[in-house]
Amino acid sequence: MTQLLRVQNFSVSSDGFGAGEGQSFERPFGDVSPERLFAWAEATAGWPNRTDPGGSRGLDDYFTRDFAHNIGAEIMGRNKFGPQRGPWNDHEWLGPWGDEPPFHTPVFVLTHHERPSFTLSDTTFHFVGGGPAEVLDQARKAARGKDVRLGGGVATVRQFLEADLVDTLHVAVVPERFGSGLRLWESPDELLDRFHLEVVPSPSGVRHHLFWRK
Amino acid sequence: MTQLLRVQNFSVSSDGFGAGEGQSFERPFGDVSPERLFAWAEATAGWPNRTDPGGSRGLDDYFTRDFAHNIGAEIMGRNKFGPQRGPWNDHEWLGPWGDEPPFHTPVFVLTHHERPSFTLSDTTFHFVGGGPAEVLDQARKAARGKDVRLGGGVATVRQFLEADLVDTLHVAVVPERFGSGLRLWESPDELLDRFHLEVVPSPSGVRHHLFWRK
Repeated sequence: MTQLLRVQNFSVSSDGFGAGEGQSFERPFGDVSPERLFAWAEATAGWPNRTDPGGSRGLDDYFTRDFAHNIGAEIMGRNKFGPQRGPWNDHEWLGPWGDEPPFHTPVFVLTHHERPSFTLSDTTFHFVGGGPAEVLDQARKAARGKDVRLGGGVATVRQFLEADLVDTLHVAVVPERFGSGLRLWESPDELLDRFHLEVVPSPSGVRHHLFWRK
Repeated sequence: MTQLLRVQNFSVSSDGFGAGEGQSFERPFGDVSPERLFAWAEATAGWPNRTDPGGSRGLDDYFTRDFAHNIGAEIMGRNKFGPQRGPWNDHEWLGPWGDEPPFHTPVFVLTHHERPSFTLSDTTFHFVGGGPAEVLDQARKAARGKDVRLGGGVATVRQFLEADLVDTLHVAVVPERFGSGLRLWESPDELLDRFHLEVVPSPSGVRHHLFWRK
């Protein structure tokens, strides 16, 4: 079985933005409420951050419950891990997920600045430099035969797409226009030279875009 | 987390039949070629019986790769296990799956006739009598907190639906009319009193019907 690099449940606006402008500590998605991007996922039974029972078990749930399925490691950009830039002055910051990060695997945080690894519950965070191929190689080893999730944000997904390292990509296009922000694409058609695409409308209003390598 | 009883990837014709007439050893689906029911699934990367790499990774693949996800046991009817009827005279018959059954969990085969359990690779088959609730109770214990799959065939799914024990039901309606055979339903609307329903058309021509308990 191939070890895939998978983007999952990545939400963008109908005009292609994965976050608004002006990202900050208080507003990791900038001037856009995360609710506008993730309401469809939070409504499902399989939402990894769900704390109560309930939730829908229709189409959208197949995507959220696939989040951890056969995933052995995650790669994320530094901005997803936290708001700091430059050297790691604040070692107290352990990410925005509280004591129980939803990953349960090794996580590789892309950064040009060294920081020791640390473990929180059953998630270990490593801070790694190097190019995308090099980081993917590390993550694949840590995943012990399982797939690797590319967790975002937008710049990180674009970086790995440009390096042609992504195998499958699930983008949920939500029925909202942001007008500006961090752009994933002008149009999903940009990827059609390298990927198959199925577009699946959900009753929730989201249009699931499923790409896999040709 | 609730332990669900789940029907997965159960294929029926557009007129509601899950098998043709005249089931026999050589033709477990009767006068209907299984290909007509399962071509959509066999085309996917996640098809549990796939031996080569490749296969599609679009919508249909989300369903086939969910087959084993969080499943700890299966319940199946005797007709799915094999063509014998009445007492188990042929103990050489270990099911139609060869040396590596695709279940990898305990499997509970419904039968009125006693037969000792046996293990093939990492699947153990138990032969159990009793009503649906009683068998489900046994399967839930064996599943150790995970969900239980209801594997079919048609009569078994109907039996558990009538006993109101099914929590989620994924039925793939293929674009073929059989005209006669073993009928799952006259119409999916029969279940709407007890279940939510989403109908999701796939590019393959299959219409996925996703039911979950109200």
